[in-house]
Amino acid sequence: MPDSHAPARDDTSSSPLPAVAVVDAKTPGNVGTIARAMKNFGFSDLLLVDPPALDPDGEAYGFAGHAREDILPNATELTFDDLVSEYHTIGCTAVTNETDANHVRFPFSTPAELAERLPTVAGKSALVFGRERVGLTNEELAHIDEICSIPASADYPVLNLGQAATITLYELRTLALDPGDTQHPDRERTRASPPLLERLYDGWADLLEEINHPEEKRAKTMRMIRRVYGRADPTEREVNTFIGILRRATERPDRDR
Amino acid sequence: MPDSHAPARDDTSSSPLPAVAVVDAKTPGNVGTIARAMKNFGFSDLLLVDPPALDPDGEAYGFAGHAREDILPNATELTFDDLVSEYHTIGCTAVTNETDANHVRFPFSTPAELAERLPTVAGKSALVFGRERVGLTNEELAHIDEICSIPASADYPVLNLGQAATITLYELRTLALDPGDTQHPDRERTRASPPLLERLYDGWADLLEEINHPEEKRAKTMRMIRRVYGRADPTEREVNTFIGILRRATERPDRDR
Repeated sequence: MPDSHAPARDDTSSSPLPAVAVVDAKTPGNVGTIARAMKNFGFSDLLLVDPPALDPDGEAYGFAGHAREDILPNATELTFDDLVSEYHTIGCTAVTNETDANHVRFPFSTPAELAERLPTVAGKSALVFGRERVGLTNEELAHIDEICSIPASADYPVLNLGQAATITLYELRTLALDPGDTQHPDRERTRASPPLLERLYDGWADLLEEINHPEEKRAKTMRMIRRVYGRADPTEREVNTFIGILRRATERPDRDR
Repeated sequence: MPDSHAPARDDTSSSPLPAVAVVDAKTPGNVGTIARAMKNFGFSDLLLVDPPALDPDGEAYGFAGHAREDILPNATELTFDDLVSEYHTIGCTAVTNETDANHVRFPFSTPAELAERLPTVAGKSALVFGRERVGLTNEELAHIDEICSIPASADYPVLNLGQAATITLYELRTLALDPGDTQHPDRERTRASPPLLERLYDGWADLLEEINHPEEKRAKTMRMIRRVYGRADPTEREVNTFIGILRRATERPDRDR
């Protein structure tokens, strides 16, 4: 169950890592889904306003993955008034107003824009997600400091609560995770060295000669081969494998059997 | 229920909009969540390999939102072999290999990188999501053309199936939705005109004079006021509201009562 409010929080922090607030969620599973996304993207501080009962044997904990071990049991229950008085609040809504004729949901920022601005600001912020179906009410939005909205299809822009929070936290992951803090290695690809790639192309040239590929076509074919590998950024291991195959294809050790 | 395979599909299309394939999902709710995210971000073509039973009164349709009207009932059931033989397949995995010592899950691309490359390629692609808990097996990945992985916390990079698909489709929304196809207006903000803003600053200057703000501080205070509004990109309506308030504060029509 969430802790009571006051004791758990460190109100002196100037860290720009936002808290995540969920207002009046009806479905425990959605609270669990949001906690899991927080854990996936490096957030820790979950605030709950009027939460549903969060049974350790129920859906909230079932959907939370590893967040059941820390984020969910350490969540802080607080009132909406305390939320808006203690935090710079960023209300997340699917529907925006179209123009400045109405300021309830306009102007707004996208999550990608927030990801650029928030790290430059010292001070406590909270991303605020509303209840299922109706989101945050206009009365609640009147007390919210700024509006965030996820770009989606005009035909159906209303995201499920858990999915909206997941996307927002994904976009803001750079606030919580340094590049070295993800599960990914430093580079997505490691291209083989140019000398090794030249040996690969030599191997293809040898094969073309061995199979009597028409001489007038060889330069063009070699250019094509180079372009395919060039776009694929093959790894050292991939290139070595090709070199071995080409050598055996060219030499055909079993052709005289 | 999904249609049978062959008749529904248009195999001659060269559209780069990828299909979404879900392999051996166990939980109908996850299929519904993925269908909803597809609808939210403009995708339409759902492929199901060994799906769970999708009862129109069950969780798949319950989680699908408006996608229950089209994407879910129009989903295509097919075999894994047909999937990999008919599509350029992009397998989504949380865990990647670290180096080119193992090519099952390396090299890989992030969803953001795919969003840049896929629109430049004609030909049918499918994003392939595996079953809950274990994802795509190494044997399945051996038949997959390339790997996609969402950057997440090294402490806990394993996303829920529905959440992983939601983020991937969000990142790839630009393949499906032109900028004018989202629910958002053309601009997130509409800044008031410079002449109107000058009238605002004149209003503040009048107020400072009226309240006998120390003359030596006025220029500095006016710079500060200009900076605050300058960062906020206020709308015409916001500025007009401030101008009205400032005029009434300066004139104080009721001060002589």
